[in-house]
Amino acid sequence: MLRVRTRPLRVLSEEQVEEIHEASLAILERVGVEVHGEEALPLLVRAGAEVEATTRRVRLPRGLVETALRSAPSRFTLHARNPARDIDIGGDCIALLPTSGPAMVHSLEGGRRSGTIDDLVNFVKLAQWSPLLDAAFRCVEPVDLPPATRHLDYLYAAIRYSDKPLLAVGPGAVQARDALALAALLAGGAERLRQRPSVAIVVNVDSPLRFSAETVATIIAFARAGQPLQITPFVLPGIVAPVTPAGALAQENAEALAGLALAQIAHPGAPVVYGSFAAETDMRSAAPLFGTGQGVWLEVAAGQLAQRYRLPHRGMGLLCTAAVPDAQAAWEKMNCLWSLAFSHTHVLPHAAGWLEGGLTAGYEQFVLDLEMLNGLAAFLGGYSVDPESLALETIADVGPGGSYLLTEHTLANYRRVSCLSSLIGCAGDAGAEADLRSLWQRANALWRRWLAEYAEPPIDPGLHEAVRDYVARRRRGEGQSWA
Amino acid sequence: MLRVRTRPLRVLSEEQVEEIHEASLAILERVGVEVHGEEALPLLVRAGAEVEATTRRVRLPRGLVETALRSAPSRFTLHARNPARDIDIGGDCIALLPTSGPAMVHSLEGGRRSGTIDDLVNFVKLAQWSPLLDAAFRCVEPVDLPPATRHLDYLYAAIRYSDKPLLAVGPGAVQARDALALAALLAGGAERLRQRPSVAIVVNVDSPLRFSAETVATIIAFARAGQPLQITPFVLPGIVAPVTPAGALAQENAEALAGLALAQIAHPGAPVVYGSFAAETDMRSAAPLFGTGQGVWLEVAAGQLAQRYRLPHRGMGLLCTAAVPDAQAAWEKMNCLWSLAFSHTHVLPHAAGWLEGGLTAGYEQFVLDLEMLNGLAAFLGGYSVDPESLALETIADVGPGGSYLLTEHTLANYRRVSCLSSLIGCAGDAGAEADLRSLWQRANALWRRWLAEYAEPPIDPGLHEAVRDYVARRRRGEGQSWA
Repeated sequence: MLRVRTRPLRVLSEEQVEEIHEASLAILERVGVEVHGEEALPLLVRAGAEVEATTRRVRLPRGLVETALRSAPSRFTLHARNPARDIDIGGDCIALLPTSGPAMVHSLEGGRRSGTIDDLVNFVKLAQWSPLLDAAFRCVEPVDLPPATRHLDYLYAAIRYSDKPLLAVGPGAVQARDALALAALLAGGAERLRQRPSVAIVVNVDSPLRFSAETVATIIAFARAGQPLQITPFVLPGIVAPVTPAGALAQENAEALAGLALAQIAHPGAPVVYGSFAAETDMRSAAPLFGTGQGVWLEVAAGQLAQRYRLPHRGMGLLCTAAVPDAQAAWEKMNCLWSLAFSHTHVLPHAAGWLEGGLTAGYEQFVLDLEMLNGLAAFLGGYSVDPESLALETIADVGPGGSYLLTEHTLANYRRVSCLSSLIGCAGDAGAEADLRSLWQRANALWRRWLAEYAEPPIDPGLHEAVRDYVARRRRGEGQSWA
Repeated sequence: MLRVRTRPLRVLSEEQVEEIHEASLAILERVGVEVHGEEALPLLVRAGAEVEATTRRVRLPRGLVETALRSAPSRFTLHARNPARDIDIGGDCIALLPTSGPAMVHSLEGGRRSGTIDDLVNFVKLAQWSPLLDAAFRCVEPVDLPPATRHLDYLYAAIRYSDKPLLAVGPGAVQARDALALAALLAGGAERLRQRPSVAIVVNVDSPLRFSAETVATIIAFARAGQPLQITPFVLPGIVAPVTPAGALAQENAEALAGLALAQIAHPGAPVVYGSFAAETDMRSAAPLFGTGQGVWLEVAAGQLAQRYRLPHRGMGLLCTAAVPDAQAAWEKMNCLWSLAFSHTHVLPHAAGWLEGGLTAGYEQFVLDLEMLNGLAAFLGGYSVDPESLALETIADVGPGGSYLLTEHTLANYRRVSCLSSLIGCAGDAGAEADLRSLWQRANALWRRWLAEYAEPPIDPGLHEAVRDYVARRRRGEGQSWA
């Protein structure tokens, strides 16, 4: 896994972190959140919340939030079907996850078109192949299949074509429970699953300050199953939160804390990742923009809050507004990349493939994103300082005005210290004109090679059969095996 | 001026900084440097260096280097013709300077072609116009004019079309002395110039470990005139330095310290900027690459050494290998940009316009680079945390599920917190294909507008006449007024 050992960046002083924290507690205590569905309200009342049943407004006293913060773990392991693929969430690790959600695909040959199940499987295979990515994900929605059962198609593909940890998808509690049921099959039962967190899910808060019935049901189901929740507000300042970054952050933090409290009330000790997702808003069009200076500031600041709470932090990803892998995409994504390097991120969603504000998954962009992460990994890995690398003997031998090109030291070391890209950073494009096609062609050749190199991970035939059987039964409309 | 108040990034531990420092002292003491020209050797002998006259090899004892480090200032002011344009070198300021050196120009209309005096004047005007850039510079070589007097054409343009601090150009001591003579004219004599450092120059070390006669003469002339020297090795690991980053850094540091020692011996207290310029080498072609993970590591590490010595640090700039403003250019430059944000840089050369490894200056790239720096400035400027920005009243008024779009708070604040680009980050290109021309057209419209908005800064007519007269006399081959 990618590890960050640099000192994290700070954009807020300690005092400012406390001011945001206090503002968030004030929001939860005085304004409260709206909580839908039938399960949560009795739990919240029992935990000391003040509930207005008619409006579903729930006000959370400070003590309730503080108790929840005490029971949430700071780090945990997300287990994989193949134990060699287990990943750490927390500490100095960053889990890199591919993008999820787009309904469109972009590729060199096909341009921009609807996603299909073949694309979904391709992306699962590419994520399985990648040494950098820590899990596969539903990079694209299989629009050619019936909506009601697409999550089953995804889960089957993720289990069959990847042995990395399983990531569940929404949007609702039905989908969440199917993922739990399949994860329990893989783990050997619900009790063993609880011992070994093996499937993680993202839930979004409906900002401002509202939890839908589906979100609440998912939080409660996952918390009780002991499976990790990534509770993530999606904040657009000026639209669903104050336009001022401090206010947007205070509200976002309040929302994340309310979700965390609900999870901890449902099951104390439930693994929760503190998610943040706040894009700068283009107030001319009310559209989100990604990779701007304000967006980076908001992400770093959210990371400081997560650190204050000693919670793993889910960052935002290599995001962009750009629709194709162009200069704008590189520009916006690089802003995201470097904030990551110096932030407190533990889970990076959308680490590869994201385009067009999340509407599109790009094949060539997927390759380019991994190459960006490779460069960052080289930087973060650093270089040794020792007698061999200091090379004083060689410096004396070469002397003033000499050449190092053919020295033994150069020949012995150059491969080890080099991290050159076959995609970017090469002077081969000198004189190239305004066409990006040569870059896209290089990226295209790479993902096609990776798909060719991909090998299906072994799966126990009985387990495979049980998974197929569950999916087939559910496709026929039979009941879920997870209550 | 751009200010960086974030905690600087570290890639070396304190111990590793000391190891590099000790290795550099060992190189200077045991291997030494080769020093050409007639002036330096007697000065170095007198200061305690061990000189082999036949080979011109000079070994510098540790004490000599330590004495030099004690006399160099940690910060100083570089004065401008217009005092409102004075800039601070050191502290938490970053002086942003345009690129210098390219012989080629790239623009939307003209593609890639040789630079002319018109281009040079255009770039001086654009640098004068820019609120972000702290000086004008010779962004492009006027290839249409005779080589021997091009530096005079540049100096005249820089003085006439800009009232920001004057930057001298090489490559030799003749050019350096003309810059000093003109700076003395502007300052009102050599003695007043010494009181008010007003012209800075870059000198490059011929790595490995060699100082040419021209470099030595320039160092001595500028040091004695009290004008700032940016002493900058240009290190290509595996070619002119060890291929291992630690060894390249130890040699680069030794070279910078040797130059600093020479300047301090010539004139104790002379203002010196610690320069570093180390590019990762593509060992397949022996060409430098810019904006790679290794390059960023080397720059951050060099900044740590400068900080150890309490010297202002000259970083590398927004560099790229890419030949045109494409995805690769954005990618490489963004790597440079973010290392800058967290490094110890005080002078950023090549902050705007650089393309193709420094062979080309780009008009549209100049605009794009300034836009990148704008985004960074927004991030570094940060956002307030106070009752108005926390917006608790508004959050309570809007409540769960509401909209902030038309609230008074949004309308009162959105302009202030927004730093949107008209170039990048807009969703307007959604659906765009592999052509970068629309981005280039937006950038083109901007630099043309800036040139139209540019206003010539006033200059005292007598001073203007004296400058023209000096340049005319020197063009006729008459002697320099600076000894």
